[in-house]
Amino acid sequence: MVDQSTRPYDRPKARLPRGFQDSSGKTLGLFERLVGKLADVYASYGFERLTTPCIEFADALGKFLPDQDRPNEGVFSFRDDDDQWLVLRYDLTAPLARYVAENYERLAFPYRRFQTGPVFRDEKPGPGRFREFIQFDADTVGTSSMAADAEFCMLLADALAALGLAHGEYVVKVNNRKVLNGILELIGVPSGSAGEARRLGVLRAMDKLDRLGTAGVAQLLGKGRKDESGDFTDGAGLATKDIDRVLGFLGAGGSDRGGVCASLAQLVKGSAAGEEGVAELLEIDAALAAAGFLVDRVCIDPSVVRGLAYYTGPVFEAELTFEISGEDGRPVRFGSVGGGGRYDDLVERFLGKKVPATGVSIGVSRLAAALEARGLLSGKSITGPVVVLVLDRDQLLRSQAMVSELRASGIRAELYLGEGGMRAQLRYADKRAAPIVVIEGSDERAKGEVTLKDMALGAQLSGEIKSREEWAKGGASQISIKRGELVRHVHQILATHCR
Amino acid sequence: MVDQSTRPYDRPKARLPRGFQDSSGKTLGLFERLVGKLADVYASYGFERLTTPCIEFADALGKFLPDQDRPNEGVFSFRDDDDQWLVLRYDLTAPLARYVAENYERLAFPYRRFQTGPVFRDEKPGPGRFREFIQFDADTVGTSSMAADAEFCMLLADALAALGLAHGEYVVKVNNRKVLNGILELIGVPSGSAGEARRLGVLRAMDKLDRLGTAGVAQLLGKGRKDESGDFTDGAGLATKDIDRVLGFLGAGGSDRGGVCASLAQLVKGSAAGEEGVAELLEIDAALAAAGFLVDRVCIDPSVVRGLAYYTGPVFEAELTFEISGEDGRPVRFGSVGGGGRYDDLVERFLGKKVPATGVSIGVSRLAAALEARGLLSGKSITGPVVVLVLDRDQLLRSQAMVSELRASGIRAELYLGEGGMRAQLRYADKRAAPIVVIEGSDERAKGEVTLKDMALGAQLSGEIKSREEWAKGGASQISIKRGELVRHVHQILATHCR
Repeated sequence: MVDQSTRPYDRPKARLPRGFQDSSGKTLGLFERLVGKLADVYASYGFERLTTPCIEFADALGKFLPDQDRPNEGVFSFRDDDDQWLVLRYDLTAPLARYVAENYERLAFPYRRFQTGPVFRDEKPGPGRFREFIQFDADTVGTSSMAADAEFCMLLADALAALGLAHGEYVVKVNNRKVLNGILELIGVPSGSAGEARRLGVLRAMDKLDRLGTAGVAQLLGKGRKDESGDFTDGAGLATKDIDRVLGFLGAGGSDRGGVCASLAQLVKGSAAGEEGVAELLEIDAALAAAGFLVDRVCIDPSVVRGLAYYTGPVFEAELTFEISGEDGRPVRFGSVGGGGRYDDLVERFLGKKVPATGVSIGVSRLAAALEARGLLSGKSITGPVVVLVLDRDQLLRSQAMVSELRASGIRAELYLGEGGMRAQLRYADKRAAPIVVIEGSDERAKGEVTLKDMALGAQLSGEIKSREEWAKGGASQISIKRGELVRHVHQILATHCR
Repeated sequence: MVDQSTRPYDRPKARLPRGFQDSSGKTLGLFERLVGKLADVYASYGFERLTTPCIEFADALGKFLPDQDRPNEGVFSFRDDDDQWLVLRYDLTAPLARYVAENYERLAFPYRRFQTGPVFRDEKPGPGRFREFIQFDADTVGTSSMAADAEFCMLLADALAALGLAHGEYVVKVNNRKVLNGILELIGVPSGSAGEARRLGVLRAMDKLDRLGTAGVAQLLGKGRKDESGDFTDGAGLATKDIDRVLGFLGAGGSDRGGVCASLAQLVKGSAAGEEGVAELLEIDAALAAAGFLVDRVCIDPSVVRGLAYYTGPVFEAELTFEISGEDGRPVRFGSVGGGGRYDDLVERFLGKKVPATGVSIGVSRLAAALEARGLLSGKSITGPVVVLVLDRDQLLRSQAMVSELRASGIRAELYLGEGGMRAQLRYADKRAAPIVVIEGSDERAKGEVTLKDMALGAQLSGEIKSREEWAKGGASQISIKRGELVRHVHQILATHCR
């Protein structure tokens, strides 16, 4: 259904808009395996897969601005033929809310679901920031039990383990917003809009612990901080004892979960919210212990904040602890690949009542990059198919028969379908990352033989292919075998590649 | 990130726009397995997976109307911030054209790719007609070899076999547009726009063979036809001998491929296009034979037309031959689940040169419906997870430990996370399609035992659950076992379900 036009001045450019990308080959293969593995783990936890469309009503996703008679900026939007605003979903949580509200009477609660698919943001793209990307979410809706939150910690840890990461290469960190709120209460920052500005100041300072260390955060919590360039940032204006309390909170992690809870209990004593938060962390700890998750896999870390609003209780963060080469070549800790937490307003917009929910989202692109850096999930299917060459056009059917035999025995195989000669065919096989090339020239045919070229070995042994004669001397990377033993020999060579 | 609002008059409706749908549970499970199986078969043929974004430039997809300064109707469109028109892709072929043109120098040709994902049509929805749906396409770009077309026949047949369909439950039909053009030429219908109206009349009549039979088609090819209601349809006005030639063509199928080719050769003798078409069918037949595909799996059927324009050579149709219950309850042959053909203008819009291509598209929703009707691809994962109940809140950790043990042994299992009592928990397990429920009440705990309820067996044996006491007498559907033997017994019961 492609329009016909051969006039050059009519020709469109073959390109994508900024912030969009194609994916193929190794990158896509790894991505697909990653998503498949995650789905397996989530299903093993009893989560049920859900898919929802990319397009929804703007008001149903909470992105309609009645003041302006149109949807939010940042969201791709267009009008339907009856003038209602449609949007492309910008996350998987808002569609979940719509789905739960729409099917409230029918669903079995607590409702556990996972979902993966593209989401869309009409925002300025940049390096690693796309306008269409894949999210992978899991949520449990309709329970305030801390066992549900503990389950997400286990799920994140088990998912990372299933991808091949060893203990110690990842850690899931838990914290609780209520503990943080307790600390803020005790240092005199009121909750709600009254304390909004001071609250933000404190949270921003806390969020800089990784970058500025304890001393820098202390300055930002107090009078302010001058950076290396001489620029001055105003501080949150806390008194020394309050700064100490915040720093004590941030530094309370590091020991076993029970020890962290004990430290936190001291720090929030006197705040009802804070004490409730610590009690919740203790419940999570108990569930984790009962399920056999030790502190090397799931720890309590008070420095985990995860954004400024939205979450109302436990928050989780899955971190990869190994280092990769950063943009400037220096090693950097890989860091967060996902997280989430508890929130209570999921379907309130629709039904007018609070329905407790908790969930996690995994950044699949980042995680895929980490696995690629680690050489994990590569698998044999990253190599291409066995390619059977066609040296004499009139003997194509003999090649076709070989391809069929190979496929029937479970080997990925293809017939060369182009018009090229020997060299072009070998270049093609090389580009396709073929592990083996099968060749039946007239000499071989006369002897009832075929030649197998081990491309991986060949790449090691030789440089460039120059002519058939020269190449035929390739030696160790190729063997002549009986035609009847094709399948057996191809299996044998492939087995050496998998070692 | 859900807006807060509890005032009822502000509440949005939780609903989807017309023509969009959610998918979950069994339907989605089967769909996912179907797509996974297809991907495996396509990969075994050497096809490489590609993904492209949902959003593209309108002009790159050939959907920009310069006369009207905006994209076609029927396509969801919106302007980017620099005023360029973006569209949601309406198929997977136009993005393939853009991708091939954009990466022309880099790709290995012939380029085989498969792709699956949502496509979008801004059209009037109806029963079974959605505005967002999944396509599954495979194409080979850059070869005019008939071996490529033969390969798609094999691919369709092997894909249907891999889904569990037996020989005889499906058939792949091949035809060739050139043969049809030869027939039209011989009965004096010119090619090109001159013969457009008559050509359409003849093709429309041919397309009604299934519904009207030979006699009805003969009337439509000749003077016209009065239907049962008395309405008269004008005919194409062919002479008797030309009607006979068309009917001979339509009826030439049914025997082995060689026989059909021989009949067709007779019918098109004297038309260069027609003779070329028969020669191509013979090449396809030879490749199929070399690969071991007999006429019960791939046949030549001259009645296959597949739309009116676009295709330039071989066309394919994959049909399911079994009957299902139609809308009026009467059995109907399931019919087509996909097809495709050869086309030459794929990247011409971009590069100004013809690049031969051939490909197939599978209607995955229709195919999923067929497999569901046949009970195929159901698999064990259609049942829910094992549900471990929590009868005493303070013993939740004991239940958590059981869940973890079950999961560690590879069993899908979940902890009941809600607040409900025994009855609510059993109703929940029932809604979740749990195969087994694990119960540890205080009596069991005292004896070091747990109770396993076989939900499938229980459903057979009893009606509704009324009270714990009554239910506890459930008898054959439940057993008490030692706590230490939990995993072994659950595996045993699950094994009886899989038989």
